Amino acid sequence: MKAYRLHAPKGWENLKKEECQEPSVTGNQIKINIKAVSLNFRDTAVTRGGFAYPGEKLPMIPFSDGAGVITEVGPDVRKFKVGDRVSPNFFPDWHGGNFSAQKVFRSLGGSTDGVLAEYVVFSEDSVAKVPDFFSFEEAASFPCAGVTAWHSLVTKGGIKAGETVLVQGTGGVSVFGLQIAKLFGAKVIITSSSNEKLEEAKALGADYLINYKETPDWGKKALELTNGAGVDYILEVGGKDTLPQSLEALKPGGSIYIIGAVGGGAPGQANELFLSPLNMVNLQGIYVGSVDMLEEIFTAFAPNQVKPAIGKTFEFDQVHQALEFMSNGAHFGKIVVTI
Amino acid sequence: MKAYRLHAPKGWENLKKEECQEPSVTGNQIKINIKAVSLNFRDTAVTRGGFAYPGEKLPMIPFSDGAGVITEVGPDVRKFKVGDRVSPNFFPDWHGGNFSAQKVFRSLGGSTDGVLAEYVVFSEDSVAKVPDFFSFEEAASFPCAGVTAWHSLVTKGGIKAGETVLVQGTGGVSVFGLQIAKLFGAKVIITSSSNEKLEEAKALGADYLINYKETPDWGKKALELTNGAGVDYILEVGGKDTLPQSLEALKPGGSIYIIGAVGGGAPGQANELFLSPLNMVNLQGIYVGSVDMLEEIFTAFAPNQVKPAIGKTFEFDQVHQALEFMSNGAHFGKIVVTI
Amino acid sequence: MKAYRLHAPKGWENLKKEECQEPSVTGNQIKINIKAVSLNFRDTAVTRGGFAYPGEKLPMIPFSDGAGVITEVGPDVRKFKVGDRVSPNFFPDWHGGNFSAQKVFRSLGGSTDGVLAEYVVFSEDSVAKVPDFFSFEEAASFPCAGVTAWHSLVTKGGIKAGETVLVQGTGGVSVFGLQIAKLFGAKVIITSSSNEKLEEAKALGADYLINYKETPDWGKKALELTNGAGVDYILEVGGKDTLPQSLEALKPGGSIYIIGAVGGGAPGQANELFLSPLNMVNLQGIYVGSVDMLEEIFTAFAPNQVKPAIGKTFEFDQVHQALEFMSNGAHFGKIVVTI
Amino acid sequence: MKAYRLHAPKGWENLKKEECQEPSVTGNQIKINIKAVSLNFRDTAVTRGGFAYPGEKLPMIPFSDGAGVITEVGPDVRKFKVGDRVSPNFFPDWHGGNFSAQKVFRSLGGSTDGVLAEYVVFSEDSVAKVPDFFSFEEAASFPCAGVTAWHSLVTKGGIKAGETVLVQGTGGVSVFGLQIAKLFGAKVIITSSSNEKLEEAKALGADYLINYKETPDWGKKALELTNGAGVDYILEVGGKDTLPQSLEALKPGGSIYIIGAVGGGAPGQANELFLSPLNMVNLQGIYVGSVDMLEEIFTAFAPNQVKPAIGKTFEFDQVHQALEFMSNGAHFGKIVVTI
Repeated sequence: MKAYRLHAPKGWENLKKEECQEPSVTGNQIKINIKAVSLNFRDTAVTRGGFAYPGEKLPMIPFSDGAGVITEVGPDVRKFKVGDRVSPNFFPDWHGGNFSAQKVFRSLGGSTDGVLAEYVVFSEDSVAKVPDFFSFEEAASFPCAGVTAWHSLVTKGGIKAGETVLVQGTGGVSVFGLQIAKLFGAKVIITSSSNEKLEEAKALGADYLINYKETPDWGKKALELTNGAGVDYILEVGGKDTLPQSLEALKPGGSIYIIGAVGGGAPGQANELFLSPLNMVNLQGIYVGSVDMLEEIFTAFAPNQVKPAIGKTFEFDQVHQALEFMSNGAHFGKIVVTI
Repeated sequence: MKAYRLHAPKGWENLKKEECQEPSVTGNQIKINIKAVSLNFRDTAVTRGGFAYPGEKLPMIPFSDGAGVITEVGPDVRKFKVGDRVSPNFFPDWHGGNFSAQKVFRSLGGSTDGVLAEYVVFSEDSVAKVPDFFSFEEAASFPCAGVTAWHSLVTKGGIKAGETVLVQGTGGVSVFGLQIAKLFGAKVIITSSSNEKLEEAKALGADYLINYKETPDWGKKALELTNGAGVDYILEVGGKDTLPQSLEALKPGGSIYIIGAVGGGAPGQANELFLSPLNMVNLQGIYVGSVDMLEEIFTAFAPNQVKPAIGKTFEFDQVHQALEFMSNGAHFGKIVVTI
Repeated sequence: MKAYRLHAPKGWENLKKEECQEPSVTGNQIKINIKAVSLNFRDTAVTRGGFAYPGEKLPMIPFSDGAGVITEVGPDVRKFKVGDRVSPNFFPDWHGGNFSAQKVFRSLGGSTDGVLAEYVVFSEDSVAKVPDFFSFEEAASFPCAGVTAWHSLVTKGGIKAGETVLVQGTGGVSVFGLQIAKLFGAKVIITSSSNEKLEEAKALGADYLINYKETPDWGKKALELTNGAGVDYILEVGGKDTLPQSLEALKPGGSIYIIGAVGGGAPGQANELFLSPLNMVNLQGIYVGSVDMLEEIFTAFAPNQVKPAIGKTFEFDQVHQALEFMSNGAHFGKIVVTI
Repeated sequence: MKAYRLHAPKGWENLKKEECQEPSVTGNQIKINIKAVSLNFRDTAVTRGGFAYPGEKLPMIPFSDGAGVITEVGPDVRKFKVGDRVSPNFFPDWHGGNFSAQKVFRSLGGSTDGVLAEYVVFSEDSVAKVPDFFSFEEAASFPCAGVTAWHSLVTKGGIKAGETVLVQGTGGVSVFGLQIAKLFGAKVIITSSSNEKLEEAKALGADYLINYKETPDWGKKALELTNGAGVDYILEVGGKDTLPQSLEALKPGGSIYIIGAVGGGAPGQANELFLSPLNMVNLQGIYVGSVDMLEEIFTAFAPNQVKPAIGKTFEFDQVHQALEFMSNGAHFGKIVVTI
């Protein structure tokens, strides 16, 4: 089979499409013929090198987000059958329940092989069924960015109709955050430096648009838009540069979700934060999520006929172009590679 | 001022509109000029007699749900000012947090005076601000039925997009349940004996309609509509007659909310239930809710421009006709009396 | 290896100790040399016959609760190594997170092979590490009864210091409930028909003892013991006969956990219940729990040096005597078979 | 009556004991004859001046924590009667439920009159009943420090037996945190610069003692004490100096509670924080809590016969000495003034 593999020393020049041995199944494993993958900033950072996950082994198949069809099942598989459409979870060992260090030790395309290959093999417990409503390209857009936004707003936040969410920029997590908020009857404030992207966000339901180049003190602006009450939840993807504005915008008692892996942050990298206990501010680091969460977001979007925003699609031979395109940040929505 | 008062022995013939002393404010109290009230089945039962709340004193001003404008504030009032539009909570002493017997000892139009009067006086802690978006008639529809449905699906249930709710009939709690579920991106199955009412429910967003006269085994039908998965939440207003069907329809691990005061049940009245622990069924009695919940449902509906369904409006002189109309059950939506 | 297997038609006479093929590991599986098992009423019911789990296949190795030492690991095992002491979870597929029908489809010694054998093989995701503090006999006492009580009081109930728990009788779930409640600083009321057993419960920390033969209206007595406030949580193992008393004893807003598998109930069997919504009563069916919960209860008991109460220990050849002894109900604490 | 009042410009020299008009009750208010008050660092900061609460009016009766006996009730009071022993909550308007800016706008001895007087008047909704088990001195120790620790570990944290808590130093919040953790069966690591104070903490149940002068990298030490797993909860009272150590000690997925008012922080004052999202760290600002929480901590401590640690008691005339003593920080346990 064909697969991309990242060789030592890491760098895009050492990310190579090559002929590999097709993996085989055993026990409760399933073999998936991957049809589409999506990119996250983390994938550009991992493949460029500069940091290593604990347990990393090269060569490694990169990328965490994919979707495909099952072509073979191990003798102990019970949930799935050949022909089922599935998507692997970012963390293969976080099936459900609370976060633990052990559950997130392995991440696809990080400390273990990912999905940028024609065939991959996972335990049946580490994948979610893809609703018929989604194409493979659409399904492949959910695992990292969608689950991160769901984990933040739904699992941790318990978002309710009538509340307000602020999302920063139009990257994957932000756009999923916008769509989730609208699904739950919440109001959305979105920031961007591009009026064109803001208009695209408006088409997806964003209620208030702030161009942060035109309005650098966007925190104050967001506060005004809520009549001084403040926003209930913020998906913080910018770190120490945007955090002061976020704290300005936040409702006392509100939550700021500090987004992890999607931003490509190295393990152990820290953001500088300021926090006033007198406002009961909650800062919660979020590092993607569980198989249960992936199933939940699929289950939430499909019957409401909401699809992830896909910005651009590349062919299997064009992975390097896709990485370049991702790095330029000119897109709105997910970047997908079909296989 | 004019007010209706229920005299001993209780009965509709002893519910009389009469001239009463206008109440005065002290401490942290506010005086409200009531503009509209809404009826619940509980009000028909209370005024008919047949049971008495602990602490009940006659004559009593009946009805729990109203909305109006503040005309006077006590010297210690901090949250409100004259001219503010407010709605009193069903339980004046349940401000927030968990249920306790003490917090629900007093209920409007039950164990203490209600709102069927030109002027009423409450502590500022026991009322919620009414969003501009709602007329007084609309605002007066929320306190009992709306809060009961919110408490069930949101506070207790934590309803999420993609889940499924079943509501029984088209009474106040059921229609609010339908509207809340749609606000949160959930699917709704509604039952009724009237195809006409089912069509009205469909216009409010109901996804699946079941005429339970045509389909007496509607539990099985609901199960089929969820492809055998079962519904996540059921607002149970029918008691022992409908409960077997509800248990048939419920997803393993799902919740059935046994609705209290709205149905007019006497304190202490019990429903006969069947429960299989192997399905992890949750049965939760629900008895209206707190001021915080009333604020939350106002906050959820207004910005999404969702209004309560109002079935019929009566004049202040027509309270007895309104009670008759309520008892006949021919209506869809809340019955309102303007003052 | 030696194992007990239940043959068709089910019945104790067809539960036979026999020489079986030792199972082999693959993928992420581990082989455990079982050192001790504990019995639950459910095991007496399953082996006697009378009902069948969906998916049941005979002959079947019975019993759900065991503990032992790992003797072999599959090539993909990451969490454990040979020599580790572990205990399998009642539900091998419920690793963490919320209940679902799929997660509980397989239960040990029910719809799939259990632990009454010298060697058993499970996925590493379906077992919990046993703290050094516990002997194998003690560890084998936790999975069904301990997890059921933990799931009820901790996972669902969120038990807090100063609250009150009522447990019925001195069976496994009740005694674990007593120990958990004391660990969390709660008060415990325990009922029994035997003053001798009540004294044993007192030695484990029970605060109030009620002999329900001497005090048949023990619900009223429990209410008095809480100065009329009512108990916060009840572990209901008696069903329709005890439920009226439980409802009498319960605090408004309190929770009754209807215990499932431990009592040996057939799937689908129902209890008759009465519920007043005006008291906001919560009835929650409980059906054992997840691997995460098993880890939690191990983690809670060990550092506090609390050990499960073991009533009587039998040899591997004495399984039929152990079943008889269990059925007579004369014991206090768990019945264990060493292997 | 006699009361201390803080006059402009703020400063200890302008904190004067003087004859004041005894307050009178109306509506749902109660008059309390204060018998004891306790001090918090916040009180030393408020009386010294340097910052002002919004809405502050001078002269003001300082101090937030007191306990006494009801001597008069207003005509609408329902929960209490003359002779009841009660303690006012730090926030008179936060009765229950979630934090909001409005609920915490008024704080005793901050933006509104406190308790350092022979008689005070509050709404019956803003006080909690004191269990008989506690003396007035003991009861007066709970409101600010006890509720802050309870809010952190119980309300927000959901602390469970077997988990580990780290508390910094031996101030009021830390010692309450220690006692709460022990009540719930958790392990406690405590830091101090004084071996003598550490021994006092050990007598209250602390499991591990760290002298941070002898072990400046106490975060690493705490990690070792948990066998590398990390502590589940940290009560962070030190701010930017201790936070790096706290983050070193924390379990991935754990929570750090950033303590507010107790430390005497000015409104709006910020701490500098570092946070790695990849560890799912939760930072939660905590600003005392609600009347419900005050009732809960009373209810938790009394039946378990746990009393707050009282370090030193002063007479009503010795308030300035008490403030001096507090500032020197040489004490272990609460500082109390009897009236």
